[in-house]
Amino acid sequence: MEHTTAILLEVFVIFIAAQIGGELARLIRLPGVVGEIVAGCVVGPSVLGWIAPSEPLEVLSEIGVVLLLFSVGLENRVEDLKRVGGSAFAVGVLGVAIPFVFGTLWAHSIGPSWPHSLFVAAAFVATSAGITASVLKQLGALQRIESRVILGAAVIDDILAMLLLGMVVALQAGGQVRVGDLLVVLVEAIGFVIVIGWVGVRVMRRSSAWLDWPADPLSPLALVLTMCLGLAWLATRFGLAAIIGAFLAGMIASETRQHKQLEQQMRPLLALLTPFFFVLTGAKVQLAQLASGAALGLLATATLLALLTKLAGGWLGALKLGPRSALTVGVGMMPRGEVGVVIASLGLAAHVFSERMYAVIVAMSLLTSVIAPPLLAALLRHGEETAELESRDSEPS
Amino acid sequence: MEHTTAILLEVFVIFIAAQIGGELARLIRLPGVVGEIVAGCVVGPSVLGWIAPSEPLEVLSEIGVVLLLFSVGLENRVEDLKRVGGSAFAVGVLGVAIPFVFGTLWAHSIGPSWPHSLFVAAAFVATSAGITASVLKQLGALQRIESRVILGAAVIDDILAMLLLGMVVALQAGGQVRVGDLLVVLVEAIGFVIVIGWVGVRVMRRSSAWLDWPADPLSPLALVLTMCLGLAWLATRFGLAAIIGAFLAGMIASETRQHKQLEQQMRPLLALLTPFFFVLTGAKVQLAQLASGAALGLLATATLLALLTKLAGGWLGALKLGPRSALTVGVGMMPRGEVGVVIASLGLAAHVFSERMYAVIVAMSLLTSVIAPPLLAALLRHGEETAELESRDSEPS
Repeated sequence: MEHTTAILLEVFVIFIAAQIGGELARLIRLPGVVGEIVAGCVVGPSVLGWIAPSEPLEVLSEIGVVLLLFSVGLENRVEDLKRVGGSAFAVGVLGVAIPFVFGTLWAHSIGPSWPHSLFVAAAFVATSAGITASVLKQLGALQRIESRVILGAAVIDDILAMLLLGMVVALQAGGQVRVGDLLVVLVEAIGFVIVIGWVGVRVMRRSSAWLDWPADPLSPLALVLTMCLGLAWLATRFGLAAIIGAFLAGMIASETRQHKQLEQQMRPLLALLTPFFFVLTGAKVQLAQLASGAALGLLATATLLALLTKLAGGWLGALKLGPRSALTVGVGMMPRGEVGVVIASLGLAAHVFSERMYAVIVAMSLLTSVIAPPLLAALLRHGEETAELESRDSEPS
Repeated sequence: MEHTTAILLEVFVIFIAAQIGGELARLIRLPGVVGEIVAGCVVGPSVLGWIAPSEPLEVLSEIGVVLLLFSVGLENRVEDLKRVGGSAFAVGVLGVAIPFVFGTLWAHSIGPSWPHSLFVAAAFVATSAGITASVLKQLGALQRIESRVILGAAVIDDILAMLLLGMVVALQAGGQVRVGDLLVVLVEAIGFVIVIGWVGVRVMRRSSAWLDWPADPLSPLALVLTMCLGLAWLATRFGLAAIIGAFLAGMIASETRQHKQLEQQMRPLLALLTPFFFVLTGAKVQLAQLASGAALGLLATATLLALLTKLAGGWLGALKLGPRSALTVGVGMMPRGEVGVVIASLGLAAHVFSERMYAVIVAMSLLTSVIAPPLLAALLRHGEETAELESRDSEPS
């Protein structure tokens, strides 16, 4: 009970820090998430020490980002994503391959053995869909073709990143990479996405009436939230991130005739829970480890490398949408967010990363998450002339 | 990360169990909360063992009940509570005194020393505002005079229960009860309630316009949630339950001109988070400890005693509202819910309660929480002729 009381204070601090950080960021025309991440860094162990990442807070943060990706899925139909499938695939593959190759070369050049360098490079690979999705959502830009390419690519990206991580962990542990095992993992993950997407959408289109049968007026929401939590968990069983399952659940729910009402009802949930995700992401940075010229130099190089390689991958993959849209997609793929942090934690636990390398990778993940949103917002605000698919709002609801 | 994944499965199980339990209860015309508590017992360690109470789940449960009491406060004005102040005070005091006296006598009659018996009796005292408030809210009965008396009494009840627990813990530890210390605690708690209620309401009435100043359309919600979490934590600093602070925050927020919109926005939050509170309450019962005639006999006596003494206290305190309303108030005060569980845990930790007594007290708390809601619903449904204050809905908003 004592402990729950202490957590209640941290919950309050996180929530108020997010409000203040978000509001200050908006005052200087930056996306709110940037302010929330920076606020997390300020109230976290590095500066004020008012909060420290702990399991209950991690769970709140995880639920927050799961709900965020669910509501992003809710504004996207599978049909719309399929139409940009080719570009999304190219962006996903190139956005993994280029950072991985250059990340490995860079890591090896500063010391680590090849297997360790591959592990470091893995932290350069995975895009954090949460950060970008939040910016796209706040700007009301989820219907744009660039947004769809980014979201589709994030799914491909997550599948490839998972494979890569499996391979890298096996190599680092001195084991052999079994191509057969990797193939099974790959087929399972792709199978999960296709089966859930295909079956879910078909079932939902035919029968969204049953969402209304229970007596409770909030039951469509309760039922789709059940599906969201269930698919989020199931995705992790297939080696994917929970948010991929939540995103699929959202796309399935977007086929219901209650989808507008659901979007409305998701808003208070996001207002309460997403701040935990952004603030906790920021709280993980360890400024003390970075307080040397050498560390800062390393951080600057790593961040630049992370930004440029992802930009290149996204840009090349989306070139057929035109150079401006390709640039938007590239920038949208930049944030590493919590994914970089997770891989860095694995590396630290496996004694592959030094404390300093861990701090550098975490700080790089946060910097990319803070640098990309304003660029993305600027590109989207000034790029209203780019191709836009017809808005879902014009449909009869 | 592994651990977060495992928790995600428990989150899913809790959520789906609550939906199924709630729906089944409603099918047989019982309040949904009863079904959710029973579902918690079924998926908990006693039966299926799919979930086990853990810190992250406790935090979700705590946030759930905090939001529930906040939204109950949102439908109550301080003015309305003040009008029933006399009855609420009498119900609060008698509803603590009668269970405490009879609880002590009963406990001593079955063995424990006097100091230990006082500790056992403390578990008979505190009403769980969460369970009753949820039933009243679902029936749309929060505007009724009986509901106001119950909610006002719950605040008095919590203050007295806290004092009693402080006294009992001191006695049991062999210390002396210092009347001066208890008086300080009492004055602080009452001071907290009065200052927050008085100042908060006045500030809010004058200036709810500032809730709209931030750029974000959801900001009134974010700001009042900040206040809710802040006062919930502050209440615990004054020795009160977090839900008392949340209830006060809700009453303050009910003075804003955005209160209707806020009530609307709270609904999805309650749909997501209150199931954790009810299911976790149910998951705490330990059926194995109760699998003997002697234990069941003890449980039956304890439950009967808990129900009748609280009924008597509530009934006597509210008699001037008429016998039927007095009965409704008495029944509304019956559920012990999580408060009995918390006191039983303290007793177990202090080696005052045996494992069996712990299991009996927890099961008694749950039984009162499952028995009271259907009675309360029946009394309210068939008692529509009782005095009703004019509904808040008729006001210009």
